Amino acid sequence: MDYTTMCPKYEAGIEVLGKRWTGLIIRVLLGGPRRFRDIKEIVPEMSDKMLTERLKELEALGILTRHVYPETPVRVEYELTDKGRDLEPVVEAIQSWSEKWM
Amino acid sequence: MDYTTMCPKYEAGIEVLGKRWTGLIIRVLLGGPRRFRDIKEIVPEMSDKMLTERLKELEALGILTRHVYPETPVRVEYELTDKGRDLEPVVEAIQSWSEKWM
Repeated sequence: MDYTTMCPKYEAGIEVLGKRWTGLIIRVLLGGPRRFRDIKEIVPEMSDKMLTERLKELEALGILTRHVYPETPVRVEYELTDKGRDLEPVVEAIQSWSEKWM
Repeated sequence: MDYTTMCPKYEAGIEVLGKRWTGLIIRVLLGGPRRFRDIKEIVPEMSDKMLTERLKELEALGILTRHVYPETPVRVEYELTDKGRDLEPVVEAIQSWSEKWM
């Protein structure tokens, strides 16, 4: 990889992945579709407002989809798309670095 | 990897790597020791103040070292430590995801 110049695609990727909470949300959803409160349970320190915002952004970016099941009460689940699941190597790389160095 | 619970080490790793500009600075330094202005040249949109702040943080975290060469004028270079270089798989994973999806 050429490190002497910056890559616009890399910059765009970091812009998405570097946002606070995004790395945690992606990791949770790699475990499969989750409801809002499931995600909150795993990452309790994240506010409802922040999680709502990030889920909207990630949906707009095509990284996850929002499924509404017409049950009573209605059930809403968030699921990674192929684009989202393709982030697993990133999550795994951060996980192994963190286990070694943090 | 167990995605049903959050890993504190992963959270700590994301806290460091997720900070704005850090992902770009690490990528630049994977190319070898660089002076302040070399980094700025590759990432011009980053302010001097922000780069100074991030370099201090990353030095405090043991991710890079600051070398002062007693020349005239004095030369200062920033270089990744082993801990910093170990982030290459993270940078590569982000790079390949970004090339495919961004």
